[in-house]
Amino acid sequence: MYKHLIDLNDFTRSEWEEIIHTAVEIEKNPQKYSHACEGKILATLFYEPSTRTRMSFQTAMLRLGGNVIGFDNPDTSSVSKGESVKDTAKIVSGYADIIAMRSAQEGAAYAASMFTDCPVINAGDGGHLHPTQTLTDLLTLTQEVGRLNGLTIGLCGDLKNGRTVHSLIRALSCFENNRFILISTKELSLPPYVKNFMDAYNCCYQEISSLKEAVSQLDVLYMTRIQRERFSSEAEYQAQKHIYILDKEKLTDAKPDMKILHPLPRVDEITDDVDADERAVYFKQAVHGMYVRMSLIMFCLNHSDHRRSAQRPFVLNEQCENPNCITQTETYLPHYFEKNADMLICKYCSQRKLI
Amino acid sequence: MYKHLIDLNDFTRSEWEEIIHTAVEIEKNPQKYSHACEGKILATLFYEPSTRTRMSFQTAMLRLGGNVIGFDNPDTSSVSKGESVKDTAKIVSGYADIIAMRSAQEGAAYAASMFTDCPVINAGDGGHLHPTQTLTDLLTLTQEVGRLNGLTIGLCGDLKNGRTVHSLIRALSCFENNRFILISTKELSLPPYVKNFMDAYNCCYQEISSLKEAVSQLDVLYMTRIQRERFSSEAEYQAQKHIYILDKEKLTDAKPDMKILHPLPRVDEITDDVDADERAVYFKQAVHGMYVRMSLIMFCLNHSDHRRSAQRPFVLNEQCENPNCITQTETYLPHYFEKNADMLICKYCSQRKLI
Amino acid sequence: MYKHLIDLNDFTRSEWEEIIHTAVEIEKNPQKYSHACEGKILATLFYEPSTRTRMSFQTAMLRLGGNVIGFDNPDTSSVSKGESVKDTAKIVSGYADIIAMRSAQEGAAYAASMFTDCPVINAGDGGHLHPTQTLTDLLTLTQEVGRLNGLTIGLCGDLKNGRTVHSLIRALSCFENNRFILISTKELSLPPYVKNFMDAYNCCYQEISSLKEAVSQLDVLYMTRIQRERFSSEAEYQAQKHIYILDKEKLTDAKPDMKILHPLPRVDEITDDVDADERAVYFKQAVHGMYVRMSLIMFCLNHSDHRRSAQRPFVLNEQCENPNCITQTETYLPHYFEKNADMLICKYCSQRKLI
Repeated sequence: MYKHLIDLNDFTRSEWEEIIHTAVEIEKNPQKYSHACEGKILATLFYEPSTRTRMSFQTAMLRLGGNVIGFDNPDTSSVSKGESVKDTAKIVSGYADIIAMRSAQEGAAYAASMFTDCPVINAGDGGHLHPTQTLTDLLTLTQEVGRLNGLTIGLCGDLKNGRTVHSLIRALSCFENNRFILISTKELSLPPYVKNFMDAYNCCYQEISSLKEAVSQLDVLYMTRIQRERFSSEAEYQAQKHIYILDKEKLTDAKPDMKILHPLPRVDEITDDVDADERAVYFKQAVHGMYVRMSLIMFCLNHSDHRRSAQRPFVLNEQCENPNCITQTETYLPHYFEKNADMLICKYCSQRKLI
Repeated sequence: MYKHLIDLNDFTRSEWEEIIHTAVEIEKNPQKYSHACEGKILATLFYEPSTRTRMSFQTAMLRLGGNVIGFDNPDTSSVSKGESVKDTAKIVSGYADIIAMRSAQEGAAYAASMFTDCPVINAGDGGHLHPTQTLTDLLTLTQEVGRLNGLTIGLCGDLKNGRTVHSLIRALSCFENNRFILISTKELSLPPYVKNFMDAYNCCYQEISSLKEAVSQLDVLYMTRIQRERFSSEAEYQAQKHIYILDKEKLTDAKPDMKILHPLPRVDEITDDVDADERAVYFKQAVHGMYVRMSLIMFCLNHSDHRRSAQRPFVLNEQCENPNCITQTETYLPHYFEKNADMLICKYCSQRKLI
Repeated sequence: MYKHLIDLNDFTRSEWEEIIHTAVEIEKNPQKYSHACEGKILATLFYEPSTRTRMSFQTAMLRLGGNVIGFDNPDTSSVSKGESVKDTAKIVSGYADIIAMRSAQEGAAYAASMFTDCPVINAGDGGHLHPTQTLTDLLTLTQEVGRLNGLTIGLCGDLKNGRTVHSLIRALSCFENNRFILISTKELSLPPYVKNFMDAYNCCYQEISSLKEAVSQLDVLYMTRIQRERFSSEAEYQAQKHIYILDKEKLTDAKPDMKILHPLPRVDEITDDVDADERAVYFKQAVHGMYVRMSLIMFCLNHSDHRRSAQRPFVLNEQCENPNCITQTETYLPHYFEKNADMLICKYCSQRKLI
């Protein structure tokens, strides 16, 4: 079986650590890895445009000595017109050695990975998962803070809809003695299932609505943007969008070695005068993102997956209720679910459904 | 003269065989060819988007150690706005070592080849020609069936408009003892000029409307999709589109070593449950397409054309009547025709006109 | 400081000569430079599509052994949606070793260069500057005419709006004994500030409205196209557009070794029958453009800028009045001006304003 990265939880903690460790090595000595993927081809299948993520993947492969093909313009792409994800993924995997796939539909990368003759990396599937962002965050903490444990981490902004926040909390909960300060309005607070996860790992967390009050105790401040498309009405968006703005003044109470992260792009949640502050590491974070993708590409190309066949999900005569699930449009896909107590969890998009 | 591939009939049968032979060698030992085009650049000029064909060409060049430039987005491309095909082709041939060109206009690649300082490969010109698909088909038969002669080949679907079908029949007619079973409705049957060609080569063929009846005698079943854009009305398209569907059940009568080909993309003319059948080789066909393009690129770069000057067509004070001919919009082009009995054949788009 | 090329006047004449000299060397022996940028990455950030310029930059980098990332499709690019030029430029400079940037906004490349961690080349910023075209012209004159001084140069067409014309005049004024024949209608005549420049350098020039009358005395004829988008009304454009057309007949009086240049693309200002004339070097000019970009990329990567910090402009509480200036939309940019007598000159777009 190929070593796909669809969900970060497909990998073990020791696999994460191996990827981070190699990324650190690459940053130290990029020259040593400049031919590591010579003769290999990465296909970037971007059904949804995301220029920065695509450029990050492309650069990663080029800096490993490999090459890149792909598309990022769904409207003019014949591949995305009419052809099934299955056929496109199958054919492209005959050209390329590894695929990075982005889609607005949840579960698209997982669906593709069922048919390809090469590893698939999920480069974002709608509001569902974006595992390479979390790997980027873990490498940034490793390099800029020096550790992944014993941290007080403030997460600020849209904690309800932010997939990168949920994924980062899940990842950091697996490391020792991390404490989370959840800075949001009531309307944008963290969903229960992520809180349950922290409880299961005995992680401390605290909910607070004031960034100013929280900032002094933080080792890390993870800012996120409020995304218009996540709100059901413009009015709701307008009510929330300017609440959390980090500026130079708010930093006066922060620790001198606190680090500010942001997955970018930002809108106005961090003012420009913060950029020159030494604590601002979000531009470095983007560079770490390139290095961690180099490490990940090597990892997926050099490993195979021995466990996957053991994790066979159920096929059920049920339809997932998520309108954005890939199974809604790609009707040939088997309806895979996992059972958890009295819930069915869609294997593609993680939508939960009471039995 | 540069060695262009505009029409497969520009090449001799022994040249086809050389290209196929080299492609077989490359498939056996791709590593050996991984630097064959080092320092060379392929330009993919796609005036009409065709992501899969473009990716196939790109991968082919990259796997030969070369590089790729180009465009595939005519709307945002300044090249396609206002500038003549002549100027674009001439300038790009100053950058690149070889050009693959795709256009919705018939004769576009031929027109370009008149002005370039490098070889031009026709990657599809409207409904006219698509020679690299036919080379793909020939390599697929060579590799998956084991021979190009003594075959009973069923061709099913839109035989009237399918340029890949016409081209494949012409190519296979040149090999010994091939027999064609033409499976289509009356409305979508093969045009007379292709039948004349088979007659000229003493090829047997038979017209039949039932796929189910035909399937048991076939060595090869070549399925095609019914393309909406080829029909003059939506009603006609709706009447024809679902007539030929190959499913698992129809395969029960087929020979165990029959091979199923399809130029892809498919819509619904082959059901998903056929994909896992060993006789289905259409995904392998796509991979062969990449290898035959590697071989072709090397062939065009390494040969020059000594015959072309001898084939000078007539310039006539006539306008081709095909509204999709490149001469309709690129008015500087000389009006080249060939004479055949009482017909004038446009050298660009092969449109026939009574004298 | 990185060695950016925003305005050709950022470089000294001896730097131009070094770039041209190296370009001549590369044309003589391209093989020698085929690994000069191995392991380096060029990012082409094209906020405005310009396929030919982009392909010229891409080919240049590939022929130096480097690689290319980038975008050229502003509408589907997430980078151009919402993200500031500052953030995009900063992040991409973490991926790439050098950036070529094109924008419809004047001053965009200069703005980007204030934030990047790598050199920036201006690949055209609206109607403002296009320095690599002028380097292309200088290399073309060097290679096709043999010298940059003692020339009688006719410039024909839209001399009012043509940025390439203004830039070329400024460059050639720095060389000895050049004389300019300005061929245009009254409406499209050269602006006073360029004339002032020629006066300052004691350059002879003459204004004339007839191409036919001017052509016999020229060593070089530089044709330009009349661009619709520069006119305030369609009527004005229609009145001017067909006035200057160079055809075979007008060349009868020209010197046998006169050279015809054109920045391309052309519309109809040079007829097709001129292309075969030996004096027509505009297609060769495009090839020289690729070589001069190879030389420029090497130059920027291998030099740093020691002077820039000394040229600190004033920051003023004034807003540039040019509606197309980058400072209109990128509001975080400091308002930089230079003072010249009683004028303030915007450092981004060169717009002048009385104090």
